[in-house]
Amino acid sequence: MIILNGGSSAGKSGIVRCLQAVLPQPWLAFGIDSLIDAMPAAMRSSDDGIGFAADGGVSVGGDFRALEGAWAQGLVTMARAGARVVIDDVFLGGAGSQERWRGFLGDLDVLWVGVRCEATVAAARETARGDRVAGMAAKQADLVHRGVVYDIEVDTTRTESLDCARAIAARVA
Amino acid sequence: MIILNGGSSAGKSGIVRCLQAVLPQPWLAFGIDSLIDAMPAAMRSSDDGIGFAADGGVSVGGDFRALEGAWAQGLVTMARAGARVVIDDVFLGGAGSQERWRGFLGDLDVLWVGVRCEATVAAARETARGDRVAGMAAKQADLVHRGVVYDIEVDTTRTESLDCARAIAARVA
Amino acid sequence: MIILNGGSSAGKSGIVRCLQAVLPQPWLAFGIDSLIDAMPAAMRSSDDGIGFAADGGVSVGGDFRALEGAWAQGLVTMARAGARVVIDDVFLGGAGSQERWRGFLGDLDVLWVGVRCEATVAAARETARGDRVAGMAAKQADLVHRGVVYDIEVDTTRTESLDCARAIAARVA
Amino acid sequence: MIILNGGSSAGKSGIVRCLQAVLPQPWLAFGIDSLIDAMPAAMRSSDDGIGFAADGGVSVGGDFRALEGAWAQGLVTMARAGARVVIDDVFLGGAGSQERWRGFLGDLDVLWVGVRCEATVAAARETARGDRVAGMAAKQADLVHRGVVYDIEVDTTRTESLDCARAIAARVA
Repeated sequence: MIILNGGSSAGKSGIVRCLQAVLPQPWLAFGIDSLIDAMPAAMRSSDDGIGFAADGGVSVGGDFRALEGAWAQGLVTMARAGARVVIDDVFLGGAGSQERWRGFLGDLDVLWVGVRCEATVAAARETARGDRVAGMAAKQADLVHRGVVYDIEVDTTRTESLDCARAIAARVA
Repeated sequence: MIILNGGSSAGKSGIVRCLQAVLPQPWLAFGIDSLIDAMPAAMRSSDDGIGFAADGGVSVGGDFRALEGAWAQGLVTMARAGARVVIDDVFLGGAGSQERWRGFLGDLDVLWVGVRCEATVAAARETARGDRVAGMAAKQADLVHRGVVYDIEVDTTRTESLDCARAIAARVA
Repeated sequence: MIILNGGSSAGKSGIVRCLQAVLPQPWLAFGIDSLIDAMPAAMRSSDDGIGFAADGGVSVGGDFRALEGAWAQGLVTMARAGARVVIDDVFLGGAGSQERWRGFLGDLDVLWVGVRCEATVAAARETARGDRVAGMAAKQADLVHRGVVYDIEVDTTRTESLDCARAIAARVA
Repeated sequence: MIILNGGSSAGKSGIVRCLQAVLPQPWLAFGIDSLIDAMPAAMRSSDDGIGFAADGGVSVGGDFRALEGAWAQGLVTMARAGARVVIDDVFLGGAGSQERWRGFLGDLDVLWVGVRCEATVAAARETARGDRVAGMAAKQADLVHRGVVYDIEVDTTRTESLDCARAIAARVA
């Protein structure tokens, strides 16, 4: 199992697609975006769900946390059942988010990957993609890495996604 | 857990979105489409993956089956961990596909839903959506229901997705 | 040139894709959705642009109207230059919107098509598609047809998009 | 009017979205991708349409060229009618493609922008986006610029889309 953590617009999805292309075995990719897609539309307009403020702030409520926990446990089961699984997540709680994952993972072998990108560059890419609330990239760029421990870190500021993916793939047995 | 089975363009996704809207609790939705999205792009051009023939035929190989099995077990774990989960699937193997699910489900409580649509109408809707290989709808319309046992069946031929969803929701305790 | 007018979720896009499939010659399809996609994202949060209220109401400002007018004139030019063009629009101004189109069309030959759908059914389909502000379908179902004169009207309430498209195609020389 | 020319995955769309964000007035954006979206699905599997070979080669037939010509004339009309229009195109014919545009433009004022990206980097980004036929980026990287004359050139190899957009915007009166 590979878990990537990085702020919005840091380039996680691009790295995941490249990982799927360069790794010799088929890997399943899941992420916080696909989790939100799996939730009812109403979760995006409820205090118990996930809220995106106009300034890029993200808040999550109890229902969201509960479903996210069940989802994480399900992904761990997929890995235990033999699937190679790569996950991209946004650790809004920094070290606390990693600790929560560790509780679900048990003794499962995981490669922790930090995906960094300078805040100004991530913000510029947020403008270029055009489908995100402006401000998320800058707000999350440092926040999500606070206290998190990685096996490998990549930085997309000046390195292409494919090169980042190759560095990560080299760490996968 | 709710499992919907029906052919391509029978209207499963629309029913799932309506279910998420009418059910009072938040439900997570997964399906065969989101599974394919989670796989490497190369799986769509490999004998071990999933192939879409020009006539609408679908063939799946060993790698696909293995990942699909691990995915199903993960979804069962999500449900056991407290998430309400609705799945839309296409039982290409009819009764055999249902039997495979039963092996993963154990004693988990499931509502089995058959989503039917007359082949000619499903084929017409396939043309209208424009993002599927022509022929899938007609090929799968009856095939996927062979030998499958349901708790409730709905038919989108002349009933709106929202009405189908309400009938299903009435069966959820 | 074919111009379809109907409320949100009445099924215009599905009919357009079917028209492109059944008409023997290649037709270019444009619509109010593709126009909005062509505009800056900021137009969706400006008084001069287009606003979607929480109750499904739609308001348009001066910048939007100006760009829309230039766009319409461009589509007329495409048709005059030899392209077959099918347009789906939402006449928020009813007869006034048709009059505005007539001003741009000059003597160009147009087939005017009304796409109707009962408000409750359109609202149900709005829920099923899940990507529109709830309430638009009901608000627009009758409003957009007020005073508009058609060459042919179709009703998707109980007729499939493909059958509607065939009825329209039969009117294209 | 601004016309950007560059190979597949050179980053044209990102620059266009940034241009729309940084330019003080609203600009309409059209491109070869939105033109293909406007065509019937069958155009992608016809000799007269547009073909994408497995090696990334792109071939276009008579119907495609005819519709493209009418489309270009329509965009020119939009600009003459007062809309600011930015177009991203792929000059498969190099200087010949520019000459064809000039024929449609007449005396309309245009800013010609070359969007370059080193072939290996464009190919890496093609892998990262995951929605294009592999090989297009490399094949088109140099080809599309042959003999084309620009007012300004930008290079996304080591410059962010937003910075490229700012350089272009500085040239717009």
